[in-house]
Amino acid sequence: MGEFELIRRHFQRHTQPQPAQVVLGIGDDCALLQPAPGHQLAISSDMLVQGRHFFADVDPAALGHKALAVNLSDLAAMGARPLGFTLALALPQADNAWLSAFAQGLFALADTHACPLVGGDTTRGPLNICITVFGELQPGQALRRSAAQPGDDLYLSGRTGEARLELELLLGTDWAQHHTLPGALHRLRPRLERPTPRLALGQALAGLAHAALDLSDGLAGDLGHILHASGVGATIHQALLPVAPDLQALPEAQRLDCLLHGGDDYELLFTAAPAQRAAVAAAAQTSQTPVQRIGHINAAPGLWLLNAAGEQATLSPRGFDHFG
Amino acid sequence: MGEFELIRRHFQRHTQPQPAQVVLGIGDDCALLQPAPGHQLAISSDMLVQGRHFFADVDPAALGHKALAVNLSDLAAMGARPLGFTLALALPQADNAWLSAFAQGLFALADTHACPLVGGDTTRGPLNICITVFGELQPGQALRRSAAQPGDDLYLSGRTGEARLELELLLGTDWAQHHTLPGALHRLRPRLERPTPRLALGQALAGLAHAALDLSDGLAGDLGHILHASGVGATIHQALLPVAPDLQALPEAQRLDCLLHGGDDYELLFTAAPAQRAAVAAAAQTSQTPVQRIGHINAAPGLWLLNAAGEQATLSPRGFDHFG
Repeated sequence: MGEFELIRRHFQRHTQPQPAQVVLGIGDDCALLQPAPGHQLAISSDMLVQGRHFFADVDPAALGHKALAVNLSDLAAMGARPLGFTLALALPQADNAWLSAFAQGLFALADTHACPLVGGDTTRGPLNICITVFGELQPGQALRRSAAQPGDDLYLSGRTGEARLELELLLGTDWAQHHTLPGALHRLRPRLERPTPRLALGQALAGLAHAALDLSDGLAGDLGHILHASGVGATIHQALLPVAPDLQALPEAQRLDCLLHGGDDYELLFTAAPAQRAAVAAAAQTSQTPVQRIGHINAAPGLWLLNAAGEQATLSPRGFDHFG
Repeated sequence: MGEFELIRRHFQRHTQPQPAQVVLGIGDDCALLQPAPGHQLAISSDMLVQGRHFFADVDPAALGHKALAVNLSDLAAMGARPLGFTLALALPQADNAWLSAFAQGLFALADTHACPLVGGDTTRGPLNICITVFGELQPGQALRRSAAQPGDDLYLSGRTGEARLELELLLGTDWAQHHTLPGALHRLRPRLERPTPRLALGQALAGLAHAALDLSDGLAGDLGHILHASGVGATIHQALLPVAPDLQALPEAQRLDCLLHGGDDYELLFTAAPAQRAAVAAAAQTSQTPVQRIGHINAAPGLWLLNAAGEQATLSPRGFDHFG
């Protein structure tokens, strides 16, 4: 199977109707998209490397899902509507079974969000998946990291920590093994491998929320980016953090580690004025996405955790660093 | 040096003014671009892998140039004007000297074409460079592979084969060693490592030429894509092919191999109606790009080479195939 046959067989979809924004898809020097009149273009790119972002034996369908999901999550965090994506793929060999499953996982998510594959590149090399995604939004509506304001409420979609716990279970580390409920390894797998990009929520928040980002490197570390970009501080109320049933069984230190420094959550973290609480609740409802107020933004810099006893402690915004 | 410090030090440019189309650059979940009203967006993505697209000891400045050049060349082939690009980079380690030179080569070319880096990703892994580039053009002006018409003239910018000859010299193969002029290895290096994207020519041809593409896998093989997409054939006149001085010394079979199947040329191959010869010449002149008519398009399928003696032979459209 040659390069063009590989693309034709696995990535060109001859029966799928092209969404209206696609003027020209796979097969030319460039793809051509037509954004809505006057709209801005939102762009994000993520590269996934074997052994770094996923295990060599990961289900290829899950990998196809996740490679696109982490990019769509960036569009969600900006409040953008997806237009399409490109896929650049380095493969050690052309394995039809692997490619077929990868494409199935990829396209299932792409179809859910009407986000077509419009172009890309395939080459031979150590397994590497680079997706670049394009979205559109109206000028002035983007949810920027720099827009948090003192007094804002701090919100979280869904809940954090389950992906991290699953990673510990897969790695067979000590602290996870001894404190988890039966069946957790199997039950939590989708939380690590098949994150849900919160696109409907992000679009409902555009023009309503102030700052937003998606959580990839842990709640505390990613919140640090908002605080730094906005020149503000924040307090997280520990009692308000949603805790998944599988995290209840963990000792408190490990539970907090999952909740605050877990990574791979792909939930939205955002701020909004207290006057917008009803509007935020309505956005959560129309997008059918659980949203929880977990703290607030302070004028003074610093990140604080307020525990159930009413004690405040500084929180280190350590996140994951590929070169740390 | 951590991931964010790496980006800040090498890829964020604090003194460079942002072009008007960049609403938001590096540092948020997405970059934001504002295309001109009513314009279409042209997108291309290329992934470069060590050992496949470049040697491990390549000058990192040349690599930075080439990684962007091959993408800009795709915009040129579509007739689009550059808006910006993203860079996803997997690195075995954070090497400041290497990164500094890579960024220098990358930004020198980006600045030449007012094409800013707006976002991307960095991670640890086997060296892999994935650039996605964005351009804009007016609806209906794109130069598509499928637009060649019987009777069209066939044109080539610049000349082909020098990159291939340099590759043979670097590899130390037999046939290149014995038939090259003194100093060729040094003289031809930029032809392999620093291709010139023909952006000004491509934009001058938008709405004027019919089909176009950029040559990456060899003249004959890439012309085959136009013929296939357009449902036509072509005849190349061997006597009209521009031959670089360094190719003159090669035996004819090897010279033809370079000219027709060389690869890595990044010249534009395009077709236009014979009535447009003066307009094509004017486009070549305003863009200060050498352009040569090298043949014509036929209604009947098939690719033919007409030699100086007036004999026709079929030409195999074999190009490079990463999985062939």
